[in-house]
Amino acid sequence: MSAARGQQLYDFASRLYPICRSITGNGVRETLRLVGQRIPLAVHEVPSGTRVFDWEVPAEWNIDGATLTDPHGERVVDFRAHNLHIVSYSEPVSATLPLEELGPHLHSIPEHPDWIPYRTSYYRRNWGFCMAHARRARLGAGRYRIEIDSALTRGSLTYGEALLPGSTREEVLLFAHVCHPSLANDNTSGIAIATALAEWLAGEPHRYTYRFVFAPGTIGSLCWLKRNEQRLGRVRHGLVLALLGDPGPLTYKMSRRESSEIDAAAAYVLARTDPRAQVIPFSPYGYDERQLCSPGFNLPVGRLTRSVNGGYPQYHSSADDLSLIAPQHLQQSYEACQMIIQVLEGNRQYVNLSPRGEPQLGKRGLYGALGGRSPAAREQAMLWVLSQSDGTRPLLEVARRSGIDFHTLEEAASALQRAGLLRPAGAARLRRKKVSTRRRRKS
Amino acid sequence: MSAARGQQLYDFASRLYPICRSITGNGVRETLRLVGQRIPLAVHEVPSGTRVFDWEVPAEWNIDGATLTDPHGERVVDFRAHNLHIVSYSEPVSATLPLEELGPHLHSIPEHPDWIPYRTSYYRRNWGFCMAHARRARLGAGRYRIEIDSALTRGSLTYGEALLPGSTREEVLLFAHVCHPSLANDNTSGIAIATALAEWLAGEPHRYTYRFVFAPGTIGSLCWLKRNEQRLGRVRHGLVLALLGDPGPLTYKMSRRESSEIDAAAAYVLARTDPRAQVIPFSPYGYDERQLCSPGFNLPVGRLTRSVNGGYPQYHSSADDLSLIAPQHLQQSYEACQMIIQVLEGNRQYVNLSPRGEPQLGKRGLYGALGGRSPAAREQAMLWVLSQSDGTRPLLEVARRSGIDFHTLEEAASALQRAGLLRPAGAARLRRKKVSTRRRRKS
Amino acid sequence: MSAARGQQLYDFASRLYPICRSITGNGVRETLRLVGQRIPLAVHEVPSGTRVFDWEVPAEWNIDGATLTDPHGERVVDFRAHNLHIVSYSEPVSATLPLEELGPHLHSIPEHPDWIPYRTSYYRRNWGFCMAHARRARLGAGRYRIEIDSALTRGSLTYGEALLPGSTREEVLLFAHVCHPSLANDNTSGIAIATALAEWLAGEPHRYTYRFVFAPGTIGSLCWLKRNEQRLGRVRHGLVLALLGDPGPLTYKMSRRESSEIDAAAAYVLARTDPRAQVIPFSPYGYDERQLCSPGFNLPVGRLTRSVNGGYPQYHSSADDLSLIAPQHLQQSYEACQMIIQVLEGNRQYVNLSPRGEPQLGKRGLYGALGGRSPAAREQAMLWVLSQSDGTRPLLEVARRSGIDFHTLEEAASALQRAGLLRPAGAARLRRKKVSTRRRRKS
Repeated sequence: MSAARGQQLYDFASRLYPICRSITGNGVRETLRLVGQRIPLAVHEVPSGTRVFDWEVPAEWNIDGATLTDPHGERVVDFRAHNLHIVSYSEPVSATLPLEELGPHLHSIPEHPDWIPYRTSYYRRNWGFCMAHARRARLGAGRYRIEIDSALTRGSLTYGEALLPGSTREEVLLFAHVCHPSLANDNTSGIAIATALAEWLAGEPHRYTYRFVFAPGTIGSLCWLKRNEQRLGRVRHGLVLALLGDPGPLTYKMSRRESSEIDAAAAYVLARTDPRAQVIPFSPYGYDERQLCSPGFNLPVGRLTRSVNGGYPQYHSSADDLSLIAPQHLQQSYEACQMIIQVLEGNRQYVNLSPRGEPQLGKRGLYGALGGRSPAAREQAMLWVLSQSDGTRPLLEVARRSGIDFHTLEEAASALQRAGLLRPAGAARLRRKKVSTRRRRKS
Repeated sequence: MSAARGQQLYDFASRLYPICRSITGNGVRETLRLVGQRIPLAVHEVPSGTRVFDWEVPAEWNIDGATLTDPHGERVVDFRAHNLHIVSYSEPVSATLPLEELGPHLHSIPEHPDWIPYRTSYYRRNWGFCMAHARRARLGAGRYRIEIDSALTRGSLTYGEALLPGSTREEVLLFAHVCHPSLANDNTSGIAIATALAEWLAGEPHRYTYRFVFAPGTIGSLCWLKRNEQRLGRVRHGLVLALLGDPGPLTYKMSRRESSEIDAAAAYVLARTDPRAQVIPFSPYGYDERQLCSPGFNLPVGRLTRSVNGGYPQYHSSADDLSLIAPQHLQQSYEACQMIIQVLEGNRQYVNLSPRGEPQLGKRGLYGALGGRSPAAREQAMLWVLSQSDGTRPLLEVARRSGIDFHTLEEAASALQRAGLLRPAGAARLRRKKVSTRRRRKS
Repeated sequence: MSAARGQQLYDFASRLYPICRSITGNGVRETLRLVGQRIPLAVHEVPSGTRVFDWEVPAEWNIDGATLTDPHGERVVDFRAHNLHIVSYSEPVSATLPLEELGPHLHSIPEHPDWIPYRTSYYRRNWGFCMAHARRARLGAGRYRIEIDSALTRGSLTYGEALLPGSTREEVLLFAHVCHPSLANDNTSGIAIATALAEWLAGEPHRYTYRFVFAPGTIGSLCWLKRNEQRLGRVRHGLVLALLGDPGPLTYKMSRRESSEIDAAAAYVLARTDPRAQVIPFSPYGYDERQLCSPGFNLPVGRLTRSVNGGYPQYHSSADDLSLIAPQHLQQSYEACQMIIQVLEGNRQYVNLSPRGEPQLGKRGLYGALGGRSPAAREQAMLWVLSQSDGTRPLLEVARRSGIDFHTLEEAASALQRAGLLRPAGAARLRRKKVSTRRRRKS
């Protein structure tokens, strides 16, 4: 893979970065418009007030400007300078308040006095400014002017979906949240990688159907779950993509089941990608795996990040900017996703069609004619595939037992399949079913 | 808990210490009388000769005095000086024997020349004196006078039982052996702690029914098993209590099943009580877990001790006296028992009543309204309980997976239950059963 | 065991060593004749051209002589000097070739210039000489005379079988390959040990029926499998024996099932035989476990070697000669085999006939009458056997749990069986079956 991929990912993340996203509103629509320029994206709108399980889609929020002006007329905070300056979902305000009453509406991080925190208040009407603690510390007594030019209206929540049909209807779900404003790692990195994976898969043959969802966190994934509840049985594997551009090690968080095929595939790939990479157990806090893996759905969905949520100092602050992410990290994350998909695609269970003893590979040109020497690596791979292919052990299990690289085993399986010595396990049941149908007709 | 508890336990053990107990006789009755002054104790008598499984209740043994007098008329051994001087179940003897013939009837510990050993001969008629090896070594040649004023009569075996009914008929069995004479750790410590636990539980609400059994070892637990055989299905958990006052580390011996809930609960509590505490596998030798866990019963009963049987030098000798045990050890043991009981009481499986996605905790006041910050510990605990509550994972399993303290999870579960988001798993089946009954009536 | 056993094994291996074996031909017959002088051996011939699964028995190969003569008339290679000089299954040749054309037909080992390699070409017609690389390096230009006096004829493949009936028809399969020419460790060591084990078992009572198979590798085991396919269900345990005389540590390779009883028995014995001994997982390359454990048979057959195939420098070369193997290694290997067989014979599941509580061992003279002291080792062994004997846990499992030596547990089980307290698990079902038959007759 060309190293240019990392730069392309970075460039797209940079285009997404300045947009002021929230869980509803035009920021999400603009984000999906940019994604939709590259992949075939269906955009869905869910009206405000729609019931989704225990939740309700809130009013749509948009904002044009917000300022805080001090007693001397100086603009202390201006939304135009940084999206994070305003608490997301702040209601419209036009008022003057003394400093004492302003306190509960101001947010800052004393430990990092130059950073602006990221705060939201989606489900309780409120307003507030986020600012550098250093500036806040210099605020003098007196009355402050608050102008928040926002709107909370009956509108809708917006999410996008790209469907790439495969040779089967079994699905792989890839999920990126699109609700965070100017935070680069969280989650322009995930949106950029999901978009690029969809572009790549559109040009590759694949057996699974891939469904990419770009949706606001929590309420967005709940909307998607609600609208797709009847189709969830098709989801064989899934991955939530977030925080993929920072320098932290690749980190796979297991699905709630902790024994899903995606768990094995991701663990296999990460162990071969980066010695620092780690696999962590499931926990119920995080991104949209919270909803996808809730006990009523319990989908086989894991999560790939680099650092984890809350796991780096810049998390949810203005310091999560374009200097935190880098092309080489994005590229490594992207390649790990590709390899996970390749393993899922290739991880079949096979049936050895000549299971009593070894088949004579030599007469098929698959084994060296001169005996007495150790077999070559590809011969060993064929022996392993034949030995393990009783219809119950997928290739990833053969890789684990044999220590042989997954790709080498895939090639061995292909060679054996071409020689008529192996078939995928699923095909067996179909064929046997047909036979029994025919027999019944005769009788 | 007040540190005074340890002193109370020590004082009660001290009152029990001087009594000459055996597997039958008035020493057991006096012990049960003292226990019965503090808790409601039903005392049972099982007649000599009663068949209990492969065994038979032996004759009742009582003793008034025993002396060994040397050729010069000096009393070498006097039962009144120490209960251990006489082999338990020694038959009545009045005889004079030369030193040579006395040998097989004298018991001492060469390695500890000042200690008197503890010996018994319940099932073969015999007699003997136990004495300090130093004194034995000075015995001169000549004829010795033996006077043993004991009685072996058709009487009965005595055991006591305290029943504390809970809100369910499912039982927790707590077992202490009451057959050892003046041995402080083995087992006045266990009797004292069992008694105090029953006192405590009598004043606490509890869902399980607690059954405290104070019985002689082996034949006593067999008698209890025989008389309660039809009720054993109610025993959900159990604990044999012994050797709980010495300075050794708390040691939990697993039930024969080694995967009982009591095994998990005790391991959890011990890991949080004392870094020296240990969990050891089941083995068929020990105290009454030998009988309770025999393959025909296989009850989910573990054992809590500090040092193990045979695991300290003073074991089964006069050095297991009141100086070996101490208030602070008794108190720690008692508190561990309490915590184990609390975990058993709270270790329910719950069902999340809003399992599709997370329920919206914020609108119920269970979650902070301001987003962007990490959730508080109690919010994390609620997310864990909701995520794991599919009716199969008890809270202890949630504690293991989450690393969150059991008590914090219990409080989270209570809050969720009050909010109508959770119910105990058992309630589900009952409710569903009612529904189906109603339906059948209609049709 | 007398240390003389090792010397006897070495002597027999030495007699087998000079014979020129291949997968067919008179070398195998001569080998089986020597084995048949010691144990009752049935010799089977399978005609050339017989289909065996995916294979076909090849033409029979015999050889009388083979020489390579240089341009000066000097004999460079003479088969009479070493069996390994000729590629096994070389076709008859009488020709003169220039050095340049000879190259593909010459085999040597540059890393070990004095050793002759072992090479075969069973299934593709070919010919070749194997020689020391040092000699090959000195070959001068010019024309070389090749005379190979071999014959490839419609004949048969030969294998031998010794059957030692036990008290049941359940079988233990012991397998040694007999196709390698003058290679001492691979496999005159295995043939010698298999023969001695059969001699020993012929004079010992045993419950299993033992089947010793002496057959050529791969095609020989396939012939045996083909002819015995209907009887394979009787095979309870099996062991492939090879490479048992070298100084390497005893190495047990697990069956494909990796949880067979033979896997547990061999691991138990090896851990007690040699601290260097190792147990390795199954892999599909090796000796006849390749066929016996193929997924269509999946027999519970492991493999015992010292060094593994390909795991020592002399492997498949003339340096695998009688100096590589030694009496003490053969003796240790033989004793390990004996112990594995003894464990298999003794590894029963028992049923405690007095399972409710402990039976009273004292009244049966099985337990000391004087109480208060720790029980003796044999008393502990009896308690363990009684505790674990619920019909599901074989003695080897009791040994693992208790840490008590297998033999001590066997003796405890015997004593308990004599006392009427224990019976083997199988017997139970038979007896119960009879009872229910009788009942049915009445009704």
